[in-house]
Amino acid sequence: MIPVKSRDNTKIKILRKLRSRKFREQSGLCYVEGIRQVYSAFEEGFHFEFLIVSSDLLRSEHAWKLVNDLISNGVQVIDVDQNIFKSISLRDNPQGIAGVVRQKWHSLESIDPREGLCLLALKAVQDPGNIGSILRTADAVGVRYVILLGDSVDPYDPNSVRAGAGATFTVKLIKTSFERLLDWKNIHQIPVIGAVGGAPLNYSRVNYPYPCILLMGSERQGLDLREQSSCDMLVSVPMVGKVDSLNLAVATSVILYEIFDQRSRL
Amino acid sequence: MIPVKSRDNTKIKILRKLRSRKFREQSGLCYVEGIRQVYSAFEEGFHFEFLIVSSDLLRSEHAWKLVNDLISNGVQVIDVDQNIFKSISLRDNPQGIAGVVRQKWHSLESIDPREGLCLLALKAVQDPGNIGSILRTADAVGVRYVILLGDSVDPYDPNSVRAGAGATFTVKLIKTSFERLLDWKNIHQIPVIGAVGGAPLNYSRVNYPYPCILLMGSERQGLDLREQSSCDMLVSVPMVGKVDSLNLAVATSVILYEIFDQRSRL
Repeated sequence: MIPVKSRDNTKIKILRKLRSRKFREQSGLCYVEGIRQVYSAFEEGFHFEFLIVSSDLLRSEHAWKLVNDLISNGVQVIDVDQNIFKSISLRDNPQGIAGVVRQKWHSLESIDPREGLCLLALKAVQDPGNIGSILRTADAVGVRYVILLGDSVDPYDPNSVRAGAGATFTVKLIKTSFERLLDWKNIHQIPVIGAVGGAPLNYSRVNYPYPCILLMGSERQGLDLREQSSCDMLVSVPMVGKVDSLNLAVATSVILYEIFDQRSRL
Repeated sequence: MIPVKSRDNTKIKILRKLRSRKFREQSGLCYVEGIRQVYSAFEEGFHFEFLIVSSDLLRSEHAWKLVNDLISNGVQVIDVDQNIFKSISLRDNPQGIAGVVRQKWHSLESIDPREGLCLLALKAVQDPGNIGSILRTADAVGVRYVILLGDSVDPYDPNSVRAGAGATFTVKLIKTSFERLLDWKNIHQIPVIGAVGGAPLNYSRVNYPYPCILLMGSERQGLDLREQSSCDMLVSVPMVGKVDSLNLAVATSVILYEIFDQRSRL
């Protein structure tokens, strides 16, 4: 381990710069913090540029084993005092472990539509917490690929990664346009089920075909009319209260668990 | 409307101070921003201390009708320029309407256990976004009362209110201890269904009694062994991936929608 005493060290500066989307896109890197997230990225074979630990903070034996595994894999580890670590941490109670990993993106062409519970396509998600929570549910129900359409929030945003609790690295990410997804689904003849507030079909009264694509709209706009008309089926999650919509991660998860439940009853 | 030109105006200062939990608890007030939230608080009969608008920002006719309704109800409205409004706003694109309302709390003794889909009890929720999303789902499925146990985040935190999308005002809130809830449920003989990761009973294979209390643990600790042993039934949401837990709002919502779905099939 290389001890680093200065906040102006080049690597420390990179960690801070990874809060900026522009820098993440230019560098293709992302910031990952906490034992669970670092473990998940390592287990899923993500390339670590380097690891940063603070011996003052990192207490768990399990975490030190992870650090040793990373060192054995040739990853450079730098050790900083807890004040430097806290200055870069995005948590209230930092565990003292973080890393910089190379992002992974998959192409639509590389997907086997029959891999996983279903495909999940998200149109222009705006909230980092939502994308993280959605990936977490996707992992839990066995969705392998999540397709981000249009002007989406960055799933490698540190707040998305945090909300993902490791799922950012276990679920495979694809970025494409709505038009390319349509072409692809037409070639492979995969039905698209769109979720639209107020659609007459109740999500829980539908038999979900296999394979299928579940398409969710953005937090504010949902799916527009053109997008709705491209779907093979539109479903809604019923609401009997006064509020006009559910949180996007909630709505997505409720439908995913219904699909999951139907499959496990087969 | 009273035009206010200074950021040091007493009312403007109150708006900023409402970001502090301590001040919210001392004053019993909360900050509510945006057309939907202000509308919801007004519709549900919450007492407005005052309303603040920025004529430069507030464009919607619907919103101006709301302002007039509030004025007709004797609410003092102050008008500020957009720079002052932006300095107090918690949003990226403020709509130009916010207010200060008096919090409402209900007592366990005032509850009719048969009102609503079920009772929802949350132990020590920590994340403002989670409590907001949970209230939003609770509203959607017809839960009338949400019971906050122990050291919970404040549902009147501006970030909770925002995530609640109005549900903070439509769902009735109760704050109590786990012990008092147990006494109450024993008197009324209401079964408690606890959600615990890894519990052998799948949440979707259970018939939910009516009335019942759904008890969810906190984000990090879940329910402890003593709390689990006080439950009449323990259920889990199955997970087949690598991540070890779901987001709390997601897990709560998935179970609530299962209960809702069972009731609507009766």
